[in-house]
This record gives sequence, structure tokens and C-alpha cells, in this order.
Amino acid sequence: MDYFRPAIAASSGYLPGEQPPPGASVIKLNTNENPYPPSPKAIAVLRNLDGEWLRRYPDPYGRAFCQAVSQVLDVPTDGLILGNGSDELLTLLMRACAEGRDRAVAYPTPTYVLYPVLASFQPATVVEVPYGPDFALPVEALLRAKAALTFIATPNSPTGHTVALPSLRRLAAEAAGLVVIDEAYVDFAEISALPLVREFDNVIVLRTLSKGYGLAGLRLGFAIAQPSLSQTLFKVKDSYSMDAIALNVGAAALLDQDYKNAQAEKVKRSRSRLTTALRKLNFAVLPSQGNFVLVTPPVNSAETLYKALKQRGILVRYFNQPGLNHQLRITVGTDAQIDTLLETLSKLL
Amino acid sequence: MDYFRPAIAASSGYLPGEQPPPGASVIKLNTNENPYPPSPKAIAVLRNLDGEWLRRYPDPYGRAFCQAVSQVLDVPTDGLILGNGSDELLTLLMRACAEGRDRAVAYPTPTYVLYPVLASFQPATVVEVPYGPDFALPVEALLRAKAALTFIATPNSPTGHTVALPSLRRLAAEAAGLVVIDEAYVDFAEISALPLVREFDNVIVLRTLSKGYGLAGLRLGFAIAQPSLSQTLFKVKDSYSMDAIALNVGAAALLDQDYKNAQAEKVKRSRSRLTTALRKLNFAVLPSQGNFVLVTPPVNSAETLYKALKQRGILVRYFNQPGLNHQLRITVGTDAQIDTLLETLSKLL
Repeated sequence: MDYFRPAIAASSGYLPGEQPPPGASVIKLNTNENPYPPSPKAIAVLRNLDGEWLRRYPDPYGRAFCQAVSQVLDVPTDGLILGNGSDELLTLLMRACAEGRDRAVAYPTPTYVLYPVLASFQPATVVEVPYGPDFALPVEALLRAKAALTFIATPNSPTGHTVALPSLRRLAAEAAGLVVIDEAYVDFAEISALPLVREFDNVIVLRTLSKGYGLAGLRLGFAIAQPSLSQTLFKVKDSYSMDAIALNVGAAALLDQDYKNAQAEKVKRSRSRLTTALRKLNFAVLPSQGNFVLVTPPVNSAETLYKALKQRGILVRYFNQPGLNHQLRITVGTDAQIDTLLETLSKLL
Repeated sequence: MDYFRPAIAASSGYLPGEQPPPGASVIKLNTNENPYPPSPKAIAVLRNLDGEWLRRYPDPYGRAFCQAVSQVLDVPTDGLILGNGSDELLTLLMRACAEGRDRAVAYPTPTYVLYPVLASFQPATVVEVPYGPDFALPVEALLRAKAALTFIATPNSPTGHTVALPSLRRLAAEAAGLVVIDEAYVDFAEISALPLVREFDNVIVLRTLSKGYGLAGLRLGFAIAQPSLSQTLFKVKDSYSMDAIALNVGAAALLDQDYKNAQAEKVKRSRSRLTTALRKLNFAVLPSQGNFVLVTPPVNSAETLYKALKQRGILVRYFNQPGLNHQLRITVGTDAQIDTLLETLSKLL
């Protein structure tokens, strides 16, 4: 007997972005972390945490954190489900809903490269539909897939565009299965699809503390849906995947909206400056609502430039796959990091 | 279309033990936490953690923590895989290996009630084989199941017995699939099956920091296997499920073996005292190598006693299922907690 299921043996798995240890002298613009630290109020909670939180199992439902979400987003707690980052919620959705040809997974491309990897483990058929001109959502083609799960990331990675609410509303109204709206980057954008949760019992909106709140190291995400949906998903979930420290620190960060919004404004200003400067260097730069930009270099190949930057201590994201391998995704860093990046690029071109 | 896969709709999910918030005036002897806090060295790491660890994604491989495991257990790092508690590793194994009738899951009963729940999500056929007299491992019957995964918890929960190495060795040598040796409670026991990892490419040993190290709130576990096995499992894993705080605090706790062993010795002495005292109250008490005892009350039903204790602020574990519903599992608490429990029981009987 083979030790592993055929689907697992055949899958290549997900290749995470490079994560050098803190302290390494590298400018890290490859995995879309916030360049600014989390709220001082969150750090204070960490510093003063009672050791008893470590000894005891965490609350499987994360009720105190759910109260904070409810307060900040004005949503009822009974439709919330928390996860170890929104990645765990993606995994849960895939395990709960996707299987074979009759319970397929659909999404517009290019998008988050984790979706097909998770589908391959089930395995479930994947239907990829390219975005239209100006990133118009291909609603008809997505609906024809009759998928059990349709994933829409907005703002989308790696492109940075947002999907307009009317398109999402049409998709949700006519989809046979669930529509997952992955809002990991919403804190840097001007719109959110959250209102759709009240309108549709098949819509689930995913959020994370990894980007806007500067807490990628904490591993905390949440989903907002109608209660019946969240409660069924909860059945599949490991009981204790959000740890007690994350739940406490995360709640403090979430409640400090002023701090989060102030950092997001800084990132948006830097994004604008970075976009302008890269265009002056003859890069093609997509307008972005995330904390990153997707760029096409003017001369060198994307791979060559990625390697040259890495050699000079600057990490950006290169996706070695068709359709994306002529572009680079660059996280919006601090102004100092952006200056160094621009200087280095000027020399390299 | 139903939103969920039939297997998910049909499964009842796992019911975690009650987790009242810290500070609640309750004596918590229901989910086998260590009664003693984690190593002061681990707490010190928490107090002094650089905020940069929060902002950045954690190391997907947890390399620094793996180095600590390698040092403490004298195992090579390339056979290690970390998880968000050993529960995540159980989930990974199930997703990677179990499916339908041809890739079944087998285990001796009674044991950890999570195994069949995880199997139900795949779904995979479950073959349950009762332990023999004196908890002899039913090796022949387990082998006849031709399972893709055979789970052996040792020390076993809720019984507290350990499985002897020769039985495990026979099982591993003849099993068609993987043999998962779940050593969550090994720090309170006299034996470990770790040597089998070198002998067999189908053996994987699971460990956790939740019990012996007093870090149930931290969510960190690890598995030891031969490299090909760990590396395939890693493909299925969420990249960032162990957070940066857990990896740092956990490494400090792991390296402080003296502290861990000293607390385990205290727990073992208390276990012995609790066992003797309960027998004097005419409870049937199984000899235990874990930090808990499984007991049969002399008069009242287990359910009645569970409820009466809960009313008086003492939580123990009652499993409302055939074969276990006449017993209670009681975590070994501090000596003061044991005194209160014994007094309360004397009054109730």
C-alpha cells in the first residue's frame, strides 16, 4: 500500500515566500507584511499576559475576540468563525465543500496561488477563468462552472485591483455553491463586500490580522457569514488552532482602529509614491488597492531582476508560473525601504 | 446544490472539553492541562519578545524550534514536522492518508475520541478494535484492518495505560500503512516508542508541548519520522500554522528539560496520592501513566457525579458515549485541588 493518498502524492504543495529570520539584513518586500509594527496596545497586552493563559487551553470559539469583531464591524457574533490566519479558513472551506468534478472550485485568474493547491488535496476539479479587460469579473463563465466554491480575492493578489460590488452581488445571487470573498487586503482599499453577508446565505467574507494590523506573526483571521454556514464550518475545525496569546493580542489590535487606519494611510501614500517612481523608471505598474504593486520591468526579465535584487539584499516576489512570470510583486515598504529599492533599481536598469 | 460535502453534513464534529476563561473560580480537571505553569525561561522569552516577530510571517519550517527538538531528543532535524498542537498533525495525517474503505483508519478502543471525528470528514472507514484483557494491544485484529493509518495513543487517554514496545514493533513491522504513535502524555510515563522511528519508515511519533510543558495555550506539537514521510506531510500543511511567539516560547520551554521533569515528578507523586485516596473512597481507579486517572464511581452514576461536581465548581471529564459513560476522567491537579476534590467527593458519596 502507498502510504499517501494519490492526490497528495501527485500534488506539489504550496511554496511559501522566503522568510528570513528577523535581524537578517534584508529588505523584505516579498510577502506583503505591513511595514509598520502592530498597535502599541497589542504589544502591551503581550508584555503583560498572565502565564495562566499559556498553561490552559484557549477558548475554542474565541468569544472575547468575536466580541471585538462584532463591536468594530457591527456584525452579530453568531455568524463569526475564527481561524489560524485566513489560510486556515480557506483550508476549512475546501475540506468542507470541495470534492471531485461535481463539487468543483472556481476563481478568476490571476489570483492567490494557494487556491489550486488546496483544491489538489481534496482533490477537486479547478475551473480557472481569466479576468476580462480592465479586470472585469467574468461572472457568466464563473457561474457556468457550477462550482461548490467560488473564490474572489478583493483587493486581489497579485494584481491589486478590487472587484465591484454589483458583480459580486450577481455572482452571489446566481451561484449554486458558496462565494468566498477573500478580503485579506481590505484595510488598504476603499470598498468592502461585507454588506453582501446580510443579503446572501452563500457568501462568506474572510479577513485577517496579518496585513492591515501588522500581525502576520500572530496567525489570526476570521470569517463573517450567516450563522448556519459558520456553524457547519466549525465542525471541521481543529478546536484549538487560535492560541490564547493570539486571541488576546489580536483583540487589542482590532479594537485600536485609529492606529490601524493611520498606518494604512501611510501605506497608501507610500504606494502612490512607489507607483509614480516606478513608472518614471519605465516599469508598467498596475493601480493597486493592496499594500503591494504588480509591475512589469522595462528591460530585464522579471526573473533576472528578482535575482539581482535578492543579491543586493532586497526580496520581492517572483511567481515562476505561466501568466505571472514576466512580472514582480513588490510589497509597499517604509519610505526608507522604498528609497533603497528605487536607487537599486536605477542602478540595475 | 448543498453547500457542504455529504460527509461534513453527516458528521457531528468534535465537542471540545469545557474551557472557562482564566479567573473563573473553578477547579479545572477536565482537559488534562499541567497544573503547573510553564518554565520561567519560557515566560521570560514571552515578556521580552521583539515586536518584529509579530509583524513578520513566522518561519514555515520552525527551524530554530527543530534545532531545539534535535538537541533534546537526539534526532535529526530533517525528519521533524511541527504543528499547531499535535491535533494539527493528526489532521494532516488524516488528510494525507485516509480515504474510503481502501484507505481505512484503525485504532484500539477506548482511546482519543478525536480519531473517528477526523476520519468522518474524509470520509474514511473506521475500524475500532477493543483492547484485550489488561489492555493488551490487539495486534492481529488491527493488522487485519489493513488500514492506511493505525493510531496508538501511549500513554492512552482516557485509560492511562502504556503500550509495550514489542507489540508496537510487531504492528509496525507488519502494517500495510502508517503507524501513528501519539505520545501526548509521554512526559508522565516511563517509556517511549521513539526508538521505533529509526527502525521503521512507516512509524511517526507525535509529541506536544500542551501537557508535560504546561503550554496548552501556546499550540505547539511536533512529529518525528523518517524524512520522506515528514516531507510529504509538509506539502499538505498550512505554511504558517505555528505562530512566531509559539516557536520562540516553545523552544525555550523545550530546552528547559530540568524544569519540565521536575514538574512531571510532582504530577506523578500527586497521581499516586490521588489514586490511593480514590480507592479508599471505593472508586475503581485504573493505574495511569498520564496526568489523569480514569475512575468508576462506587455508587452514583458517572453522569450524576460529573454534574454534582460541576455544580460545586469542579470540572472533570464525562464522555457521553457507550463504553465510557460509566467512568470519569480526572486530571491530576495541584495537591490543594486534589484535597478539595477528595473532600467534595467524600461529602457527595
